[in-house]
Amino acid sequence: MGKISIKDIAKQAGVSSATVSRVINNNGRFSEKTREKVLALIEEFEYSPNIVAKSLRTKRSQSIGVIVPDISNEFFSQVTLAIENYCFTKGYSVFVCNTNEDEEKEKLYLKDLEAKGVDGLIYISGGTLDILSHISKRKIPIVCIDRKPKSKDVIIVESDNYSGGFMATEELVRVNCKKIVILKDYRNVTSAMYRFKGYRDALKKYGLPIDPTLVLSINISVNSARDAILELIRTNIAFDGVFATTDWLAVGALDALRQSKIKVPGEVKIVGFDNISITEYSCPKITTINQDKEKIGRISTKKLLEMIDGGPLSDSNEDIIIPVQLIRRETT
Amino acid sequence: MGKISIKDIAKQAGVSSATVSRVINNNGRFSEKTREKVLALIEEFEYSPNIVAKSLRTKRSQSIGVIVPDISNEFFSQVTLAIENYCFTKGYSVFVCNTNEDEEKEKLYLKDLEAKGVDGLIYISGGTLDILSHISKRKIPIVCIDRKPKSKDVIIVESDNYSGGFMATEELVRVNCKKIVILKDYRNVTSAMYRFKGYRDALKKYGLPIDPTLVLSINISVNSARDAILELIRTNIAFDGVFATTDWLAVGALDALRQSKIKVPGEVKIVGFDNISITEYSCPKITTINQDKEKIGRISTKKLLEMIDGGPLSDSNEDIIIPVQLIRRETT
Repeated sequence: MGKISIKDIAKQAGVSSATVSRVINNNGRFSEKTREKVLALIEEFEYSPNIVAKSLRTKRSQSIGVIVPDISNEFFSQVTLAIENYCFTKGYSVFVCNTNEDEEKEKLYLKDLEAKGVDGLIYISGGTLDILSHISKRKIPIVCIDRKPKSKDVIIVESDNYSGGFMATEELVRVNCKKIVILKDYRNVTSAMYRFKGYRDALKKYGLPIDPTLVLSINISVNSARDAILELIRTNIAFDGVFATTDWLAVGALDALRQSKIKVPGEVKIVGFDNISITEYSCPKITTINQDKEKIGRISTKKLLEMIDGGPLSDSNEDIIIPVQLIRRETT
Repeated sequence: MGKISIKDIAKQAGVSSATVSRVINNNGRFSEKTREKVLALIEEFEYSPNIVAKSLRTKRSQSIGVIVPDISNEFFSQVTLAIENYCFTKGYSVFVCNTNEDEEKEKLYLKDLEAKGVDGLIYISGGTLDILSHISKRKIPIVCIDRKPKSKDVIIVESDNYSGGFMATEELVRVNCKKIVILKDYRNVTSAMYRFKGYRDALKKYGLPIDPTLVLSINISVNSARDAILELIRTNIAFDGVFATTDWLAVGALDALRQSKIKVPGEVKIVGFDNISITEYSCPKITTINQDKEKIGRISTKKLLEMIDGGPLSDSNEDIIIPVQLIRRETT
């Protein structure tokens, strides 16, 4: 029975190979019952430590780093939660690093996570930093979420932002909007650019002109959105629809319209983007584009762990696009 | 100059001692400029490696674990964000572990974090698990947030839940409520119990009876709160105020009342607890008790890092109570 493998032990014990590895290493998650069962089988089959040594990959920290702008934003916290849940099932732990989109902080974190020996990195909504130039030559697996980074050969998992932008705009056209404002990130991050392209192409499809005075490139915050819409109203620029490229921007727009006694959806319609819970409990409830945050987190992590397990480190052709859905509520 | 200390180097370089340590260890966060400055000073003053060896604590992973029910809940994500921000300034990284309040998951995480050699643990809203019995004899520093755990000799940082419960109820009495429902966690967690005691004592102070049919012990979710209030309405139990011991419970109550065409605040008043952003953007905006999430996170982490640096591991007398504030909005 000298040729028995970890797989065989796992099968006999009714657990995964990863669990057997963890029991042998006495590192990670398994119940006392599992431990006893696995150890009994190892003894029974005289499982050889040499085979163990071969089968187990070494030099793993069983941890990954997640670099995220701000987990107090629900979109980010839900993606991070999904990452962490998937990691848990695979015996990995997650360092969570909030950068507040500060490039210096991002650089320091990259350095620190490398020093801590993480097995991989997930980089959420970075995109302004050329990350690959800030980690060492040791090729550490990286998956980017939401925004394509400047570094080219990195896998990205993102929502279908183009279709989302198109659907949001089409929804506003459907309810007879003719002058549609877009509130978008002033930076050239890919997610904002794709949503803008969707907006542009939907207007084109329905024969509506693109009016530059209605394209508002702003900071991504409730206050910036509120101020931008108040300014439009103050300067008497007519509009009857708002495509807010994030839900928090939609909340800001809604607040500005309420302050100005402009009826939503009576006089102005709004569509957001993300589908976070504020859209379900605001008043009126906000029509939005759903991003599948659980799937984005899960697929990214699955991909990363495959890379850690020896899959290809990068494949520039491989953008993973997650479908989005229109959630019709009360603002359209 | 053989007697120069890390402190002296730090002073000369205009950085903290911790930064000098990190440069020497080449581990953690510092800029290239800082590194050059510190190394130049070390050379200049012939800083002795023996002194370095003495000054630096060893066997540190420079990481802590945070065990939290669910970071997609804004109260938890804001506390976790504050922990992580404070850790960043001190060169520590944070493993974030979401348990969904599952005891088995909590146990596995404790085991795993210990195996990963974290220097300390912050345990948010645990309290149902006797954690100390699930970590090894090596006394790892622990700070608990929000709920007092079963294990007695652990430091806890919590909001002034008793005063919060009292203030919330007093606010409802102020606006003439006579029959005040309380929505509370069905489990005997300390935060819920203190809020309930505050409710009870406020009613007593104002000569109102405590009606057991108005004390609703439920699961802590929007849906449970909605169902509980709908059930009260269905069974014709009269009430004119709701103290929801979390904001999400307030959102559920508001939804039930809206569905039932009962006016808020016209017919029923509501006060929540936490002050998360949903209360500011719901309709009507929800009056609530503010928990200082940033301070809770920061103070807990400061305390934990002091313990890691050799402070007392525990002091059963030392509950750290963070004041709360009434935020008056539109539901009262």
